[in-house]
Amino acid sequence: MAFQKNMVDEQHSEGTFVHVPNPHLEKMKSDILYHFALGTGTHDFPALFGDVKFVCVGGSPSRMKAFITYMAEELGIGGPGSDYPNICAGTDRYAMYKAGPVLSVSHGMGIPSIAIMLHELIKLLYHSKCSNVTIFRIGTSGGIGLPPGSVVITKQSVDAMFKPQFEQIILGKSVFRNTNLNEKLAEDLMECAKELDQFNTVIGNTMCTLDFYEGQARLDGAICSYTEKDKLQYLQEAYKAGVRNIEMESSVFAAMCNLSGLSGAVVCVTLLNRLEGDQITTPHDILKEYQTRPQKLVGHLIKKYLGKQ
Amino acid sequence: MAFQKNMVDEQHSEGTFVHVPNPHLEKMKSDILYHFALGTGTHDFPALFGDVKFVCVGGSPSRMKAFITYMAEELGIGGPGSDYPNICAGTDRYAMYKAGPVLSVSHGMGIPSIAIMLHELIKLLYHSKCSNVTIFRIGTSGGIGLPPGSVVITKQSVDAMFKPQFEQIILGKSVFRNTNLNEKLAEDLMECAKELDQFNTVIGNTMCTLDFYEGQARLDGAICSYTEKDKLQYLQEAYKAGVRNIEMESSVFAAMCNLSGLSGAVVCVTLLNRLEGDQITTPHDILKEYQTRPQKLVGHLIKKYLGKQ
Repeated sequence: MAFQKNMVDEQHSEGTFVHVPNPHLEKMKSDILYHFALGTGTHDFPALFGDVKFVCVGGSPSRMKAFITYMAEELGIGGPGSDYPNICAGTDRYAMYKAGPVLSVSHGMGIPSIAIMLHELIKLLYHSKCSNVTIFRIGTSGGIGLPPGSVVITKQSVDAMFKPQFEQIILGKSVFRNTNLNEKLAEDLMECAKELDQFNTVIGNTMCTLDFYEGQARLDGAICSYTEKDKLQYLQEAYKAGVRNIEMESSVFAAMCNLSGLSGAVVCVTLLNRLEGDQITTPHDILKEYQTRPQKLVGHLIKKYLGKQ
Repeated sequence: MAFQKNMVDEQHSEGTFVHVPNPHLEKMKSDILYHFALGTGTHDFPALFGDVKFVCVGGSPSRMKAFITYMAEELGIGGPGSDYPNICAGTDRYAMYKAGPVLSVSHGMGIPSIAIMLHELIKLLYHSKCSNVTIFRIGTSGGIGLPPGSVVITKQSVDAMFKPQFEQIILGKSVFRNTNLNEKLAEDLMECAKELDQFNTVIGNTMCTLDFYEGQARLDGAICSYTEKDKLQYLQEAYKAGVRNIEMESSVFAAMCNLSGLSGAVVCVTLLNRLEGDQITTPHDILKEYQTRPQKLVGHLIKKYLGKQ
């Protein structure tokens, strides 16, 4: 395919381009990224996004806006009080912000929601001819056996049976994809955590579930058919399998990074220790501080990579 | 269980209460609905929500705000230009609006996102002692073999293998749940469509997928390993199985309605005919009008049920 040949040529001359394993795309005259309200026919992607080197994604739109403001300050981009407009203002599905080489995008909650965003994001980076892009998911999670506020850098994302795989259903059939994350990037982040020395940080496995209540063995949903003993046994088994936190997006994130050649990392703070409870009762201001921890860690790494630290 | 006995007593005297099949809830002193930023310890649920009879849920927060404004006007609640504040303003996970007996809640995209919302919504209705509640999902979808702009009232929600079931993983094991929807409610909605006579409306099966691109046989995602022929064959098979549209939330919606005793209906407009393409190229203003169609249909039914039509 001419499309793949170009990719290889470009990789040799200018670095690693984003890989889009879809031969149909080259036949399309234009591409509408519907859930971003952006399109190649209406927007100049290379001009808008060609300089992007770091993408940070997270569930909440307001947290991703806070992240871009924080990063701009840290990188000395724009003056104090600068505003960063939402690039996806034409839709309320996702929010997107940019400051210099950093793009910040919200993804909502759960695998399907982040998957839609990642399909369109990977195409956006491809159409923009971006190279050497590193992507981070910064988020919140439930911890297992860790004090609340700990940060977990994901080694492998595992499913509800603790297997490092993501099940993608294609034309009604299951396909299993690898969910390993970039080891070097995880180690670099751990190094940053040591340099910052502000909060407990570990590298561990992250369980990725399709549900927050029954899927994570919570006792406080609208529906529950198991006992507290069953719950604790399941979470203890997860701990023995190396799981240190539970969230709802990492598996498809890892799988899609692997398929598109993006270096990816997942950095989540734990809001509670699930061995001790299910409800998130920590006061709002403490939770808010917890949520800045993945931002600080990723921000520190970005500054280091850009030679600003 | 005392909890279940009360439910039965109450049902006899005052109508059908929301059923919460979780014996652990009665042991909890208070309940924090984390993703709504509401809690029984901080909010008077019966005072705030006790009169709710109809709940309408949909993906987009702005569409759910538009719906409550429309419903308030239709029901003659509040003056023209009345504003309906977001009840979940303390979070950006979901948005919630209320006008008289109608509650309107956003749920984001995908099964995990709507499931979190439904767990908390069902508990909200339970804590508020609501009775005889009917719930509607109004949304957008891809149609199969229907002209764009058609409205599909879901008979059964089926999975990617066209089976009427929802797979819930509990403690690492699969449990399959029924995804039938209330037949009488679907027929009442069809009757309303005939009365309105403004757009094509059908009752059909709805395929609910975990993914918008590969999961719905699209050729325009970042990743695609099948041919156009494979795609069309799959969609034709879906059509033969009675599938008329594809979306990403109906299966868990139906399953949770069944478990909590809520009468539920799914009403989605089709934005395109998937046998003819994958990209949503219809102009913005036409799409916007399409999106009002499920609102009009559900609004008409609510008015009829309240004796205002």
